[in-house]
Amino acid sequence: MRNIRLLLEYDGTQYGGWQRQKNSVTIQQRLEESIYSITGEHAEAVGCSRTDAGVHAKGFVCNFHTSCGIPENKVRDALNSKLPVDIRVLLSEEASVEFHSRYCSKGKTYSYTIINRDISPVIYRNYACHIKQKLNVEEMSRAAQYLVGKHDFAAFRNTGSSVKTSVRTITQLDVTCEGEYIKLYGTADGFLYNMMRIIAGTLIEVGIGKRKAWELAGILNSGDRTKAGKSAPPQGLCLEKVYY
Amino acid sequence: MRNIRLLLEYDGTQYGGWQRQKNSVTIQQRLEESIYSITGEHAEAVGCSRTDAGVHAKGFVCNFHTSCGIPENKVRDALNSKLPVDIRVLLSEEASVEFHSRYCSKGKTYSYTIINRDISPVIYRNYACHIKQKLNVEEMSRAAQYLVGKHDFAAFRNTGSSVKTSVRTITQLDVTCEGEYIKLYGTADGFLYNMMRIIAGTLIEVGIGKRKAWELAGILNSGDRTKAGKSAPPQGLCLEKVYY
Repeated sequence: MRNIRLLLEYDGTQYGGWQRQKNSVTIQQRLEESIYSITGEHAEAVGCSRTDAGVHAKGFVCNFHTSCGIPENKVRDALNSKLPVDIRVLLSEEASVEFHSRYCSKGKTYSYTIINRDISPVIYRNYACHIKQKLNVEEMSRAAQYLVGKHDFAAFRNTGSSVKTSVRTITQLDVTCEGEYIKLYGTADGFLYNMMRIIAGTLIEVGIGKRKAWELAGILNSGDRTKAGKSAPPQGLCLEKVYY
Repeated sequence: MRNIRLLLEYDGTQYGGWQRQKNSVTIQQRLEESIYSITGEHAEAVGCSRTDAGVHAKGFVCNFHTSCGIPENKVRDALNSKLPVDIRVLLSEEASVEFHSRYCSKGKTYSYTIINRDISPVIYRNYACHIKQKLNVEEMSRAAQYLVGKHDFAAFRNTGSSVKTSVRTITQLDVTCEGEYIKLYGTADGFLYNMMRIIAGTLIEVGIGKRKAWELAGILNSGDRTKAGKSAPPQGLCLEKVYY
């Protein structure tokens, strides 16, 4: 069996997230249907993570096993001819038999986009979270630095996954500002369930002055989910890159 | 009667353009319905231009007459409470009785966004035109300079409007490039019907090497619409600003 690795870009607006579900259409489902169309095989598409409903990806990685004879680089165009316009394969290539999109991942970068203005945004509204109150970007940036490094992020995860440890290493957590667009870029060796959205939600609370930057140290140490901020809404989140 | 001026942002994806039509929902229609909801009056919303189906706006200006007593700055929130999420009023203010959004306009800036990459874009696909062939941005920029200044732009308009003269002055036509995003910014004292889209389409043909930059001078002089390029698709176009 061949093992094909795909790089995907998708607009999560219309989907119930990556993973197959009974009550909504998912990206995994659409991809597996397309794989079936071109190979006649019921393959499982193994994803690098389980993005939630409404979350986007510019660099999602997945892989599937097949005995079809389509050349590795032609798989991309064959799948794109079957996929809906809001899911695209950017690259297809043959991987080693052992390659597993989730287990082999060494890290990921997520972005979180905020539109900070009075009136709710129109253009790009599906790709950003709207915050009305003026955000203090410098204070958000200061708060973010408390999270960089190797920590137990138990306070920054929602229940729903059964990973063994909640210790992760964030190597980068930058807050950038360009006009009314504020973007967070977070890179870690792994993210717990909803971790990036809870980080974004907590930094937003710092930005509006509800919390102080230095409080982040205490929240982190508490290991208590109720001490951190709310999960920021899904449409601001985008999986930018997966590292192997 | 009071004369209220509005600054609008809208996502044109779902609309048949600005102007009221029989067979599709338009932005003017939705706005006039909202004005009726808050004032009980059948006012005409006078727009600064007639954007086509699929074209967006970040700074569209319109005005309407009313005898309602809502304070000028409260009109904004009142209308936003009635409008669909893809149309927002950014500002509302009382204008002088003579103010007319179209006749008083001294100029406009449009942007045209291109995503230049192999695979069709997913995120922002409704806000950009996709060009597969690698574009030569420097050559496009050189071509654009032939159009700056006061010229007869008869070669760059489609039939459909009955303006007296096709002479216009372009004060700025910049081509910028950031990664796979190429943006044109055009400012003129006025734009003929489809002018910015025909300029974009012609510059794209220069960018892919189908035409040379210097050919623009001849196209301009010919006054012949068939000499210029195709109209680029509507979703890349955005009305950025109107000057008074």
